[in-house]
Amino acid sequence: MSRASAPGARVELICVGSELLGGKTNTHQSYISLALARFGLSLSRESSLPDDLEPLKSAIAEAFSRADALIVCGGLGPTFDDITREAAAAALGRPLVFKPELFAQIKRRFQRFRTRMPAENRRQAYLISGASALKNNFGSAPGQMLVTRGADTGKPRMLVLLPGPFAELSPMFERDVLPRLKRLYARGVFSRALSVHLAGMTESAADERLKILTRRHRPGEAFTILAGRGQVDFHAAATAPSAAQAAKRITGIRRLIRRAVGEHVFGEGETTLESAVGALLRRRRLTLASAESCTAGFFSGRVTAAPGSSDYFKGGVIAYSNELKMKMLGVSTETLRRRGAVSAECAREMAEGARRATGASIGLSITGIAGPSGGTKTKPVGLVYIGLAGPGAACSVWESRFLGSRHTVRERAAAAALYRLWRMLSQR
Amino acid sequence: MSRASAPGARVELICVGSELLGGKTNTHQSYISLALARFGLSLSRESSLPDDLEPLKSAIAEAFSRADALIVCGGLGPTFDDITREAAAAALGRPLVFKPELFAQIKRRFQRFRTRMPAENRRQAYLISGASALKNNFGSAPGQMLVTRGADTGKPRMLVLLPGPFAELSPMFERDVLPRLKRLYARGVFSRALSVHLAGMTESAADERLKILTRRHRPGEAFTILAGRGQVDFHAAATAPSAAQAAKRITGIRRLIRRAVGEHVFGEGETTLESAVGALLRRRRLTLASAESCTAGFFSGRVTAAPGSSDYFKGGVIAYSNELKMKMLGVSTETLRRRGAVSAECAREMAEGARRATGASIGLSITGIAGPSGGTKTKPVGLVYIGLAGPGAACSVWESRFLGSRHTVRERAAAAALYRLWRMLSQR
Repeated sequence: MSRASAPGARVELICVGSELLGGKTNTHQSYISLALARFGLSLSRESSLPDDLEPLKSAIAEAFSRADALIVCGGLGPTFDDITREAAAAALGRPLVFKPELFAQIKRRFQRFRTRMPAENRRQAYLISGASALKNNFGSAPGQMLVTRGADTGKPRMLVLLPGPFAELSPMFERDVLPRLKRLYARGVFSRALSVHLAGMTESAADERLKILTRRHRPGEAFTILAGRGQVDFHAAATAPSAAQAAKRITGIRRLIRRAVGEHVFGEGETTLESAVGALLRRRRLTLASAESCTAGFFSGRVTAAPGSSDYFKGGVIAYSNELKMKMLGVSTETLRRRGAVSAECAREMAEGARRATGASIGLSITGIAGPSGGTKTKPVGLVYIGLAGPGAACSVWESRFLGSRHTVRERAAAAALYRLWRMLSQR
Repeated sequence: MSRASAPGARVELICVGSELLGGKTNTHQSYISLALARFGLSLSRESSLPDDLEPLKSAIAEAFSRADALIVCGGLGPTFDDITREAAAAALGRPLVFKPELFAQIKRRFQRFRTRMPAENRRQAYLISGASALKNNFGSAPGQMLVTRGADTGKPRMLVLLPGPFAELSPMFERDVLPRLKRLYARGVFSRALSVHLAGMTESAADERLKILTRRHRPGEAFTILAGRGQVDFHAAATAPSAAQAAKRITGIRRLIRRAVGEHVFGEGETTLESAVGALLRRRRLTLASAESCTAGFFSGRVTAAPGSSDYFKGGVIAYSNELKMKMLGVSTETLRRRGAVSAECAREMAEGARRATGASIGLSITGIAGPSGGTKTKPVGLVYIGLAGPGAACSVWESRFLGSRHTVRERAAAAALYRLWRMLSQR
């Protein structure tokens, strides 16, 4: 799904930690890839290695011989199995040098937290000869950065060691590493990035309609489509010889995205579907209540994932049983008997019932068959009705069929309900 | 967190796909690691490479020279940027051979779905000379497996190519690859694995208490601790010269786990916290209703993630506003005025109100401050009260303080509520 730009600098990533080969998901790879893309750079290879000195030493030596820049994450802790410092120094044939001022800093950190520093932490005060320390404001392990010149080419070559925990790695990477990478390998190259979020369509539908961009293969452009939580994220980056040209390229890309999938674009950057909905509700001074059956709280959970959502979300009813649909939402016995709980009529009565029970200006309902069992020929697993009552007298119901596991059906139903609400609010 | 066993066979993994270097999370690595651990095997290295022929060819050649078995995932599709077949054949210096019977199979698959086969799919009918095809029941790309003998050592060496989509890769890996890996590299070695799930404790607390196992470093034992969704998963694997001995080792490990963290073990294997709670409710013929404030549906969403939960879950109220806490749950004005919505009293009244409003035998409530704002000195962000009313006259309230982001606080609060419910149900 990703089209890399013409290769500029070769940046490689090595992730160190036996847990990465024991089942833990590697999240650094995704974070660093997306961060590099903002500057028109991309990873040419990633490797995960266990906490073993010899294989790590060879992997670092090989990667450093191939790459312009090599980023190594993890293994900078104080204990015996944290061996990245030793492996990197050996791979480069440089000694590790004890830095008294670094040791003093580490000791001060422990004093500040009023804990005794274990003797092992002394190991963290060693730097590869020639490297500079990268300050860690969130942990004891300093990072390291070494920039040399290739003996033959004269080109700058960079080795970076970063601590493993994300909360320590990420500020260090943004503050010290990214700007340096840009200066060394993207000097005179200006880049702009754009993340556009789409709802109400599948990844493959988005992929198909965005081919006008992803398949035009212009140098200096990179695109990635990622899907999850019932939405699709489209990442674009463009580089150019000036900031103005890079901005202009991104403006052109944004225009093409809008033309291809405009009605599905609910936001950019940090915007989530729930924050986009929340901003519209707040602006129009409307309040929301929910009535959930098959999603049973998934929808409300997403609405309230946005901080400050108590400004517009009143609450709702999880009417999992027919009894509660009648008792708490006023769904009629007639509807349940003749149409069933999974029907457009029931969705409508649930949405209106949520509004009535809470006094909210908008009531949103979801009723469906999440599976794996409970499906019939006329009402298959994945059939979901979304009802929207208000503001005012308006009331709409949508029928959808979602494919996938119980979890996927529920996740997509909640996202689809948010999307319907967003479209209704943004159109009027 | 992972302690690898003494290295037996060297198994390497290469994941192919530019999207893995463009921000997509690699999930195959975790799946394959945990699957191998069941047989006492572990990955010695993982590499991710983009869809570029030359770098992939060298990476395969290098890995195949180091490893006993090399698994390559992805890049077996029909289009021009699917280059794993070509790269692997070139790396091994073997030709690709067209297999008419494979081509016929691929064509039949398209006929079955009544779609015209694109001309590009012919590429999928080529096998590396000497390899056998692995049947793909869920897609058009067959896998490939080649087993040779090292010219010098006579040891078996294995190359496997698997399709990228998880739904295609995973059945093929379980059916064709894992048994062969076991026969070749773990013959005469019997293995047993155990996944134990813990709730109500942090990863670091579990890590500390399980050191008796993870730090004893016995050969043939491997452990991994993984945390997420407010719970901790502890994976153990043991190998031995006989099935009985392997089973005995696992029994011993299970006993030690129970001794160290027994009161937190809610299940093994496929058991989830919500399915464990559901089984107890079903067995004791009890019904449950929820009253959620800060979690606003997260808890109910998890309860109903278990298929068939409508047997015992009636539904509930999302009482996000104080108004709804009074109106729908009967929380008293007095309590809200004197103690506030985030208080033990309010949690108790919410739990009792949920029971009253729904007729369920148990009412569970959650009220707290998820943040990021809204905290005070006496009621900081992360303060959460969990109330449990019923069965019968029993009523309990727990006060907790969860650290982390808004999302983490809500996730941990919902998991803690499930854990409290599970303990109550399993003790009586």
